[in-house]
Amino acid sequence: MWHLYQFPLCPFSRKVRLMLAEKGVAHELRRVSPWLQDDDFADLNPAGETPVLVEESKGVVLIDSLAICEYFEETLDKAPLIPGTASNRAEVRRLVSWFDGRMHHEVVAPLMEERMKKRLISRAPPDTTELRKAMTAANGHLDYIDYLLDHRRWLAGPALTLADLAAAAQLSVADYLGGVDWRGHKQTADWYAVMKSRPAFRPLLAERMEVIQPPAHYDKVDF
Amino acid sequence: MWHLYQFPLCPFSRKVRLMLAEKGVAHELRRVSPWLQDDDFADLNPAGETPVLVEESKGVVLIDSLAICEYFEETLDKAPLIPGTASNRAEVRRLVSWFDGRMHHEVVAPLMEERMKKRLISRAPPDTTELRKAMTAANGHLDYIDYLLDHRRWLAGPALTLADLAAAAQLSVADYLGGVDWRGHKQTADWYAVMKSRPAFRPLLAERMEVIQPPAHYDKVDF
Ligand SMILES: N[C@@H](CCC(=O)N[C@@H](CS)C(=O)NCC(=O)O)C(=O)O
Ligand SMILES: N[C@@H](CCC(=O)N[C@@H](CS)C(=O)NCC(=O)O)C(=O)O
Repeated sequence: MWHLYQFPLCPFSRKVRLMLAEKGVAHELRRVSPWLQDDDFADLNPAGETPVLVEESKGVVLIDSLAICEYFEETLDKAPLIPGTASNRAEVRRLVSWFDGRMHHEVVAPLMEERMKKRLISRAPPDTTELRKAMTAANGHLDYIDYLLDHRRWLAGPALTLADLAAAAQLSVADYLGGVDWRGHKQTADWYAVMKSRPAFRPLLAERMEVIQPPAHYDKVDF
Repeated sequence: MWHLYQFPLCPFSRKVRLMLAEKGVAHELRRVSPWLQDDDFADLNPAGETPVLVEESKGVVLIDSLAICEYFEETLDKAPLIPGTASNRAEVRRLVSWFDGRMHHEVVAPLMEERMKKRLISRAPPDTTELRKAMTAANGHLDYIDYLLDHRRWLAGPALTLADLAAAAQLSVADYLGGVDWRGHKQTADWYAVMKSRPAFRPLLAERMEVIQPPAHYDKVDF
């Protein structure tokens, strides 16, 4: 049995959970808080980061969300999420890097810092300038997703791919933390409603991080 | 013919150049300065980042250094750089993410900011606190590479892989910018001497960024 070390608002863990559910890989969740710098967890992953996926009976430890996704792309035939020609696959990976790199750095990481970590660790109030910057950046990212969807059925082309899971994972954390203003982004909102209604997404939207509650629209498919 | 959009001190471009040279893929370099936000370059890559690899006659545009490396892993049989079983391949990708993520973020990005961008853009003096932090972090990364090399011939196992190229690319930029103190890191220094002496590395070490000169030991195999 696979065990996934993760916490509810980690966007990289969310991408892996969506991938495992889409491919039908049975797994159990183990909750960790990487900011607590637990010794046992540091022994498992020297980077001290979630997600980590472990199969104890086989001695397999997988670290880094993209490495984990590529592992299942290679070992399972079911539901390919990096499909097509080498060029198509490069486009999927470009977009995964865009969402996990840029969107995380500009939008999700500052929201997590201001609205989650400060609450859990220092009990300091959020910095409103940082919050405003993150929300402006979020708007730019929604514009880019609107643009992609003007030309394509899914973010990387005609089929659902890891790019959709990466984008939805980052967006869902930003949305939980109240960082997304959906007005004026009909294409992206429609695509996200479809993502939300997939069975893979339901358990994720039902989860809560204690003390931090999402806005009312967060888990509604119709928002 | 492939054209690589890059600049001499971009560590991600360096990783791609090492990969192309190891696999024997002919290519020409096109120099760009992403911080100048050139419109033509933004049309090519909406992220405005180097590296971008283009094959004009075939209409192929590859963006993101890992996506580029995976493309050639898939399309060429020669000199695999992500070799072995699915678990071995996951370990290579974990380390590439460690060097391109953590080491870049903690060491190389601040050195580039303080010693390159400030010089080229704002002409402000470097912030010595930031420089000291980056050099302390560099020392921690050398410790981790020493530790890997205590157990392995190359960073990810018995064979040269993309993890070695990623680490050497990041390290070489940090070294160019005077951010690496090699004392007390014999394992890593020996491994890096071997990397430096590979034909793939030579053209890269010969290149200079105007106005910023590397320390005397920078391009010496014996340092
Ligand atoms: N490249 C890694 C990034 C993982 C990551 O940054 N995880 C965050 C949580 S979302 C973390 O554990 N940060 C360490 C901390 O908060 O101390 C991946 O894709 O898995
Ligand atoms: N994930 C990208 C990162 C590329 C990257 O960050 N490139 C830097 C140069 S080393 C860049 O172009 N930054 C934009 C800027 O300096 O404005 C990759 O691996 O290719």
